[in-house]
Amino acid sequence: MALLIEKDTICALSTANGVGAIAVIRVSGEDALKITSAIFSKDLTKVDSHSVHFGTIRDAEQKVIDEVLVTVLKEGKSFTGENTTEIACHGSSYIKQQILNLLFKAGCRMANPGEFTMRAYFNGRMDLSQAEAIADLISADSKKGHEIAMNQMRGGYSDKIAHLRQRLMDFASLIELELDFSEEDVEFASRTELNELVVELKEKLTLLTESFAYGNAIKHGISTVIAGRPNAGKSTLLNALLNEERAIVSSIPGTTRDTIEERLTIDGILYNFIDTAGIREATDEIEKIGVERAMSEVNKSNILLYVFDAKELDKETVENDLKRLEREGLSIVLLANKTEEMDTSKLSSYSEKYPIIPISAKKHQGLEELKLELAKSAEALSTESDTIVINARHYEAFYNALADMNQVENALAMQISGDLLAMDIRSAIRHLSSITGEITTDDLLGNIFANFCIGK
Amino acid sequence: MALLIEKDTICALSTANGVGAIAVIRVSGEDALKITSAIFSKDLTKVDSHSVHFGTIRDAEQKVIDEVLVTVLKEGKSFTGENTTEIACHGSSYIKQQILNLLFKAGCRMANPGEFTMRAYFNGRMDLSQAEAIADLISADSKKGHEIAMNQMRGGYSDKIAHLRQRLMDFASLIELELDFSEEDVEFASRTELNELVVELKEKLTLLTESFAYGNAIKHGISTVIAGRPNAGKSTLLNALLNEERAIVSSIPGTTRDTIEERLTIDGILYNFIDTAGIREATDEIEKIGVERAMSEVNKSNILLYVFDAKELDKETVENDLKRLEREGLSIVLLANKTEEMDTSKLSSYSEKYPIIPISAKKHQGLEELKLELAKSAEALSTESDTIVINARHYEAFYNALADMNQVENALAMQISGDLLAMDIRSAIRHLSSITGEITTDDLLGNIFANFCIGK
Repeated sequence: MALLIEKDTICALSTANGVGAIAVIRVSGEDALKITSAIFSKDLTKVDSHSVHFGTIRDAEQKVIDEVLVTVLKEGKSFTGENTTEIACHGSSYIKQQILNLLFKAGCRMANPGEFTMRAYFNGRMDLSQAEAIADLISADSKKGHEIAMNQMRGGYSDKIAHLRQRLMDFASLIELELDFSEEDVEFASRTELNELVVELKEKLTLLTESFAYGNAIKHGISTVIAGRPNAGKSTLLNALLNEERAIVSSIPGTTRDTIEERLTIDGILYNFIDTAGIREATDEIEKIGVERAMSEVNKSNILLYVFDAKELDKETVENDLKRLEREGLSIVLLANKTEEMDTSKLSSYSEKYPIIPISAKKHQGLEELKLELAKSAEALSTESDTIVINARHYEAFYNALADMNQVENALAMQISGDLLAMDIRSAIRHLSSITGEITTDDLLGNIFANFCIGK
Repeated sequence: MALLIEKDTICALSTANGVGAIAVIRVSGEDALKITSAIFSKDLTKVDSHSVHFGTIRDAEQKVIDEVLVTVLKEGKSFTGENTTEIACHGSSYIKQQILNLLFKAGCRMANPGEFTMRAYFNGRMDLSQAEAIADLISADSKKGHEIAMNQMRGGYSDKIAHLRQRLMDFASLIELELDFSEEDVEFASRTELNELVVELKEKLTLLTESFAYGNAIKHGISTVIAGRPNAGKSTLLNALLNEERAIVSSIPGTTRDTIEERLTIDGILYNFIDTAGIREATDEIEKIGVERAMSEVNKSNILLYVFDAKELDKETVENDLKRLEREGLSIVLLANKTEEMDTSKLSSYSEKYPIIPISAKKHQGLEELKLELAKSAEALSTESDTIVINARHYEAFYNALADMNQVENALAMQISGDLLAMDIRSAIRHLSSITGEITTDDLLGNIFANFCIGK
């Protein structure tokens, strides 16, 4: 476990790259106070935790590199759990580099990506799922994504998992105790109570695994395909939504041969809008590929915005198109485009199954109604679970624990012997433990923290 | 003086834009502690200055926006001189925006560019020349540029100016006193002593104004032109120096028709390398323009690297070229290129006036010698003045004060009346005062701080 024993003092720029008014360099490790004092105008080894000190950083020739504010956070009271200083300097690239160089010379090592957070985890300041949530929190750029990551960072399912794990462990112990007395045929662990626990666990694990589809959509954007016949105004709609000209707009049918993706946050939720090639019997080869891609995008998406030219397309064509596109779990919204000079009262006859909104992509009409409908469709994706799984690793572990619970349930029904029962329970415990990091490997940890930015 | 009375509480992101592990939002003003407390989990109005507090930022619905560290710096002890908090939050754009929004709702206003520094100046934490040096410090990306800005931020010529100003004011007062007793023909101010002061001041002001050429070169890069006959290897040399392919390199004479500029820091000094079109009798029209530009660049530059093909060009041609190029104040270095397979011992005969370095731009030979020669040329530009002027506004003020001193000297020589003498002395005082900001206008301050980044 090479990762575990590294106790040296590390440093890194913790604020964003580029020139700002100020920048913060973080130093963490046993010698953080000593090393920072070596380049700072004040001895920090004896000051209080959570105190801030103004002074100068000087180089070996006593030249002033900068006037800085140093925050001291002591062992057990810092983010990492180690002695920590945070040096707030002026934000020039020259100053940042010079201070880092001085820290290196004074005995620091450059921190690896995520190493501060990894140390926080090793020092018991948080469990692994909380540490992982920090990376999600930093990259979350929608309200909903932020909410889920924040909930998880603050211990979202840590307690829940710990509680379930404990109850499983109690049963596992009792069953293993039975094995020691196997000749006497005693039953320490009540099979009825165990069965009740398994039913309860299965329910909870099912909710959690199901929440991943929503969590994933929230994290990476709700996949929203814009489809329809050529020249229906799909690209114009995407542009209207983005309020900028990114997709190619022209009136030649089949212009948008490939798919175009745009990310857009509406009312706190991130959507991935995918503009597809028109759906029709394609004639030339390249366009045919575009149409196939459009269909494949529809099959992977959460929401379908079916755009049609209300002045041209009849009800039957729309119904036929929808039959080709609809599938379970796909929210469909019909957008009757080019309605700026139309009586829209008869449009509702186009579909009884799906909501229909009259719009004019060109004149930016009906977009507010569309946004409300998008919010409803996103809401429909959400789950009953009060905790949302957004991490694929956690999903896999919950999924495996659920499979173990199914095994235990079968074993109980078939009155299978205690040692096999205990094995399945232990497997579920292992999977739950891997989430919070009670059980882990160097490889796994390396992978997790490599995805962090340096300085966190 | 609208700028002076703004006492409201301001806030801004003080770290660089973009995603980082952490970001810092600065709040400053009378109500900074109260406003920050309104969105923070702890009351900060009664805590000590220079203390740091861990807690949560919550929105109106009590949803946790982030877990943060807040630094409290109290009135009279902060950068601005006002109550200040610095909120270190996670560096996602969503969190930064949310916290700023909450601060706005709680009564903060978005800070204007440089407004924190402007308040520091208004509150007497620094004079105007020091405030201006902060912007130079943040943008300095070479060792030398950093050194000069740091020296100025730490009060470089503030004391010097204050001292000179005081001595001038003493004389002005005495001369004005004489005017009150003009009928009695007394002389309170010794003309001999005043003359001595004027001589001393002129000397100091001359050094300072002369230092601006160097300060300006250090700040914006020492202008270094690479010139020579077509196909001498000028672009190859620039590329070798940059160690990357930016300029167009080919063996067709006259390829580099326009000038190409590249900034490069060598041994702590910033150079602006300008690759010019070849110098020769140009035939086609576009190339002629290129050659003219080359000559005009040479006329503006500090250093000229004259590159020639040592295998082809004879001594006479080189001498003729140099006669066209040389002028006072221009450091010339001869670079004998394409010497990789040559006996370089006879090259020294090419010029007795200028240093000559055998190089091979293609094989990256002789570049270290060239860099040493560049450092020498840069050193030759530097001045005796221990304080370097890098700010054009300061240069102008020193220049005008020097002109006033010349007037005073003439007036003394011509025994001109006291009232005119006093006027010239007062004018010099005004110019010196404008540097440190004792005398200033809203317009001027607006201009100065508008060039700052937001958050400083």
